[in-house]
Amino acid sequence: MLDCIIIGGGVAAVSAALTLQANGKTFEILGGSSFGAKIKKAEMINNYPGLCKVSGEQFFNALKSQLDEMQIEVKPQKATGVYAMKGKFLVTAEGDLTIEGKTVILCTGVESVKPIAGEEEFLGRGVSYCATCDGMLYKDKTIAVLCTTKSLEHEIEYLAKIAKKVYLIPLYKGVEIDGENIEKIVKMPERIEGGLKANAVVFKADKNGEQRTVSVDGVFMLKESVSPAALCGGLQTEKGHIVVKRDQSTNLKGLFAAGDCTGKPYQYAKAIGEGNIAAHSVVEYLAGK
Amino acid sequence: MLDCIIIGGGVAAVSAALTLQANGKTFEILGGSSFGAKIKKAEMINNYPGLCKVSGEQFFNALKSQLDEMQIEVKPQKATGVYAMKGKFLVTAEGDLTIEGKTVILCTGVESVKPIAGEEEFLGRGVSYCATCDGMLYKDKTIAVLCTTKSLEHEIEYLAKIAKKVYLIPLYKGVEIDGENIEKIVKMPERIEGGLKANAVVFKADKNGEQRTVSVDGVFMLKESVSPAALCGGLQTEKGHIVVKRDQSTNLKGLFAAGDCTGKPYQYAKAIGEGNIAAHSVVEYLAGK
Repeated sequence: MLDCIIIGGGVAAVSAALTLQANGKTFEILGGSSFGAKIKKAEMINNYPGLCKVSGEQFFNALKSQLDEMQIEVKPQKATGVYAMKGKFLVTAEGDLTIEGKTVILCTGVESVKPIAGEEEFLGRGVSYCATCDGMLYKDKTIAVLCTTKSLEHEIEYLAKIAKKVYLIPLYKGVEIDGENIEKIVKMPERIEGGLKANAVVFKADKNGEQRTVSVDGVFMLKESVSPAALCGGLQTEKGHIVVKRDQSTNLKGLFAAGDCTGKPYQYAKAIGEGNIAAHSVVEYLAGK
Repeated sequence: MLDCIIIGGGVAAVSAALTLQANGKTFEILGGSSFGAKIKKAEMINNYPGLCKVSGEQFFNALKSQLDEMQIEVKPQKATGVYAMKGKFLVTAEGDLTIEGKTVILCTGVESVKPIAGEEEFLGRGVSYCATCDGMLYKDKTIAVLCTTKSLEHEIEYLAKIAKKVYLIPLYKGVEIDGENIEKIVKMPERIEGGLKANAVVFKADKNGEQRTVSVDGVFMLKESVSPAALCGGLQTEKGHIVVKRDQSTNLKGLFAAGDCTGKPYQYAKAIGEGNIAAHSVVEYLAGK
């Protein structure tokens, strides 16, 4: 069993990994396919000590070559669930991956897109965050796919191969994906509706006050970050942020959190500091076991 | 009046300064003459994200050139006192310097050398942390000077020019200082003794059980870091560390702390994260005023 499972694809995860390695601990990073996507977006970073006036791209490259040099691999699978068992954690990820760890560090970031009405209500009942986990449930059916980042376009492609019809709701610029069964709707969705299961997406009214509604069998929300509360049952959050103590521990024993998911300021330096502290807390926790 | 006064000569201070600058705030850094001394000592840094396998010297050079590039100056004076006034702070420093600021960020580090018996008891009564502040009080007198770091040898020189006799107790390697009125004692002091004022230093017993005692008029403790509680009256500390909340605020309104002085882990990443958070908290505090 691994000493620790790190969940997330940003700088907090990198910092935690480097410090766990320095302490001789075993771990895996479930970074997801959008690893580094958020870092690369930064135009110019002026306040990260040690790297002067670097672009997000340069910063990412520095981190990437550091991970290569230290022989730390980031798994491209995204975590889909964290289950606290007696004295250990079971983490599920895309591609039917299951990993066991003595501890977990959540570095899941924050989603800049707020949840839409009905999203949390219908989660697991027609609303899914994971294309590869739930895609096959919608074979030859009609789905809506809301996607917040270009780096997840391959998941749209995957879904379009399975479903009969895809209503694509892209919340990013430079959409490059296309297909016979894909209809793009460039409007903000207002809510997901349904009965026992989600069955429609309602869009915000246009200038004329008209509201479009599309009927669907399911809705996929493809985001860089998943709501921590949705990922891990029983985790204490406050206004969408994970509640942590000064040692980055959460209300669940052995589960730590670091980076944007624990609250503002949303800064590289803060995320890196917290990743470091969380890793040290894991080391202490394991020693006390 | 400055928006903020940053006290300290390590990475937390650098991080706070970069973030205050990015937010358009005015500030000064009282770094002291040993600025960066502790950073340079690190042999190899393996877990700082963005800089792969750098020595302390290389890390310091990266920080130094970043400060130069951003036109941030570090004052060579060391802070000697922090006084909370109504809605502002008065900070005193070596060389009769006095600065007023709306807020203060303490990044004073930790002293690896534990206080010796009597040190805190006789502080201000024959025991001093500041050569340039109190040196002249000991003109033509006999003093003991305990020094924990080579980077403060110039302060020993300064004191040797004033005092009649200096018992130098160096707690570092490679002592280079010499003088007719300087007698080196390479032993660990056990305690400072005195009545109303300190008047003697007693050393630990040697193999034969003999204990040397030297009579003095005063004792200087030259350290890289000063006890935060000694620097700032009323500041809440616990086992020598400043007690802070998650936003790096202390029990004194407008006073924040970051880095090793707030507790373990003693890590660059942690210090940098906390410096960043403290700076953001200063920005919020100023906005709320």
